Amino acid sequence: MTDFAAIDRFITDHLEASLAELARLCAQPSVSAQGWGIQECAELVAEMLRRRGFTVEIIPTRGNPIVYAEAEGASDKTLLFYNHYDVQPPEPLELWDSPPFEPAFRDGKLFARGVSDDKGHIQCRLAALDAVKAVTGSYPCRIKFVIEGEEETSSANLEEFVVSNTGRLRADACVWEFGGINHAGQPALYLGLRGICYVELNVQTATHDAHSGLGGSIFPNAAWRLVWALNTLKDQNEHIRIPGFYDAVKPPSGRDLELLAALPDDSADLLKRYGLKGFLKGLTGGLELRRAEVFEPTCTICGLTAGYQGPGSKTVLPARASAKVDFRLVPDQEPEDILTKLRRHLDAEGFSDVEIAYLGGDKPARTDPDHPFVRLTLEAAREAYGKEPVVAPMTGGSGPNHVFINALKVPVVTAGIGYPGSQAHAPNEHIVIEHFITGVKHTARIIAKFGRGEQATPWTSTSAS
Amino acid sequence: MTDFAAIDRFITDHLEASLAELARLCAQPSVSAQGWGIQECAELVAEMLRRRGFTVEIIPTRGNPIVYAEAEGASDKTLLFYNHYDVQPPEPLELWDSPPFEPAFRDGKLFARGVSDDKGHIQCRLAALDAVKAVTGSYPCRIKFVIEGEEETSSANLEEFVVSNTGRLRADACVWEFGGINHAGQPALYLGLRGICYVELNVQTATHDAHSGLGGSIFPNAAWRLVWALNTLKDQNEHIRIPGFYDAVKPPSGRDLELLAALPDDSADLLKRYGLKGFLKGLTGGLELRRAEVFEPTCTICGLTAGYQGPGSKTVLPARASAKVDFRLVPDQEPEDILTKLRRHLDAEGFSDVEIAYLGGDKPARTDPDHPFVRLTLEAAREAYGKEPVVAPMTGGSGPNHVFINALKVPVVTAGIGYPGSQAHAPNEHIVIEHFITGVKHTARIIAKFGRGEQATPWTSTSAS
Repeated sequence: MTDFAAIDRFITDHLEASLAELARLCAQPSVSAQGWGIQECAELVAEMLRRRGFTVEIIPTRGNPIVYAEAEGASDKTLLFYNHYDVQPPEPLELWDSPPFEPAFRDGKLFARGVSDDKGHIQCRLAALDAVKAVTGSYPCRIKFVIEGEEETSSANLEEFVVSNTGRLRADACVWEFGGINHAGQPALYLGLRGICYVELNVQTATHDAHSGLGGSIFPNAAWRLVWALNTLKDQNEHIRIPGFYDAVKPPSGRDLELLAALPDDSADLLKRYGLKGFLKGLTGGLELRRAEVFEPTCTICGLTAGYQGPGSKTVLPARASAKVDFRLVPDQEPEDILTKLRRHLDAEGFSDVEIAYLGGDKPARTDPDHPFVRLTLEAAREAYGKEPVVAPMTGGSGPNHVFINALKVPVVTAGIGYPGSQAHAPNEHIVIEHFITGVKHTARIIAKFGRGEQATPWTSTSAS
Repeated sequence: MTDFAAIDRFITDHLEASLAELARLCAQPSVSAQGWGIQECAELVAEMLRRRGFTVEIIPTRGNPIVYAEAEGASDKTLLFYNHYDVQPPEPLELWDSPPFEPAFRDGKLFARGVSDDKGHIQCRLAALDAVKAVTGSYPCRIKFVIEGEEETSSANLEEFVVSNTGRLRADACVWEFGGINHAGQPALYLGLRGICYVELNVQTATHDAHSGLGGSIFPNAAWRLVWALNTLKDQNEHIRIPGFYDAVKPPSGRDLELLAALPDDSADLLKRYGLKGFLKGLTGGLELRRAEVFEPTCTICGLTAGYQGPGSKTVLPARASAKVDFRLVPDQEPEDILTKLRRHLDAEGFSDVEIAYLGGDKPARTDPDHPFVRLTLEAAREAYGKEPVVAPMTGGSGPNHVFINALKVPVVTAGIGYPGSQAHAPNEHIVIEHFITGVKHTARIIAKFGRGEQATPWTSTSAS
């Protein structure tokens, strides 16, 4: 049996050094959207891995390089970690209490852009590996890292990299880039991500704006074309009107609903946090709300822009109008299929003048909640947190988990140092040091248990949705 | 008989000094939207009038001051000039070939912000008065000037000033702030302005934006609320769906249609200038296009704003969304009535969450095309331009002409130095010096003919629409 008490001691004894290493990583900007500090950060991450005996390669892509690392271990099992070294832009700077790239410790927290998403998780994996190796003498299994540099700009080159390197990346299980506790402080395991199809709808009706007094009665208006086109996409009852949109939707299973029913009720928290008068479709909470939240596909207007948007009035007739729209997809919808149906729908409704720019997509993908690696992760959480973990069979967000689940046939679990208040993507992003400690202990247990083949049943691959 | 040859000679002989005075006026910024140089410009204009023997008062309002001036003349008739000394903001500065407040002569033009709208027209009136007085020995009638400083920000305080000073402002006729030639180079007389009701529609569904993965299925989305609400305002056939919206609409008279039919066809020019594929409702030109252009009320989306509008994708669910909408009104619609009906309509359609901010309005108003002062203005144009003028019974734009027509019962005509290419409100605003000369000659003839009571029929007041 692994001496987890010794591992936990190592973790706390080396906490200061680990946080110092994390702070150095966070001090290196790596803003993918702005092309800022990418190569430098990739090299810093590579160096952190090399220091620990990993064979590391910085692999160029058509976008930002991927840091790929491997190390041998005591067993022939392989555990794969997916993380990313890029971060969100720090703006608006004036809302930060300390500069985003000058990591600051205060109130038991560490503040910096990217400290939660996702540099703290990189450090969490490394601190866990350090502790397991220090106590047991070696890594308990083969460890692989895929640390990309474009997660914050939709992982445009990840799928091609994974698909063309399936031999090299072969693994038995994968730990995802995020994880941690929910709003009730319980360790939470997220087993699926919705897909996404993100488009920009553009209309141009003239070469330039006109005076609304001149053209109001006789010129086509790009903003009106856009409003009418959008109106055909979804009705006021939230029904998406694109023919065939719901065709591939697979309802949640009885097991999914059982897991959803066991999740804590966060409806009051949501209403308060966002100042909502209520939820859509008369939902008030409970299973029906949770089911709608993650097992229904969506059509969300993320942005609208046209004409004059400053203070006061300007009598302009816009020549251009644009909307950002995301569709969240559930199993077994696919972004390319939705894109095709959207084009066909707009044409059929008389909106062939509305251009669609496809800004990226992900397929929905899930890991079987009864997979042995999921059970191992839950057991590790029980021990590390001293609390019963909760299992979300699906979450509302999206990401490239389908790339790993589909191409590598691995189960994907979450574990980490995050919490709902971390302000990821926002000013004053931070981690709570106590969460960091528990997250590292959890990760160390996953590594150790997995390496020694503790799970009762043999590994079987699981597939998307 | 007035010696118009001598007047014309005076105008050309003193052209250089007049343009220099105009350049000095344009060098003084007076941006009402930005509160820049307002008082200084009002004083400069007052000084220009005092130099010519006017009694001038700079009258404070709740906004920018109004320059009011009076001078006695040879007859007891009174001619009122309405102008404004404020200008549009100069931005975007990088598109100007010379700085907007450093007037520049090149290619027979004078470039500066406000040189056409409306400082060149102030100078045009003064140059005409100078010439008439120099040749005839006096102003031929009493002259009054109302030169306001908020025309570019919707003349918020003009109506109150005029209505509470009807005795003082009493006049027999009024020359409007703009005028000149049309795209075909013909002198054009504009006899009516549509009204306007300008609103901002605002929706707020939460205290702040949410992640679209979190809220997409269950949170109300301000952008969707706005799109659906806008969609109820106008259908794809351009029919405005607000109950009662068309109730007060008075169709154009036979005389109106006769005048419209006589106007030159500018449809090809419009299609080319704005790069349009065609006009709305299958209109192709001719009388029907012109009738729609000015005698139909409109509902124009002037601006849309919600959520993320930058490059690429951001998965955000907007808490706020906003649209700027202008309604152009035809006789006898009234902005306050439209506002009331809009509120009632949105409530009835289930959009009481959509707030309406009223950003200003004007009533539609017209001058009788057969009014003697109109005939006098046309005769003056024939002589000054050596071309047959065209009469537009109505134009698509809006403005405070209703204030003068309704409160003072005066006919309002246009005359001036503008042309469709003047870039008013845009970078590189300019006047053509040749147009300035002819505009001054036209204005001088109006003053002289009016002063000596040349018109055949007695003055009768005309009322709105």
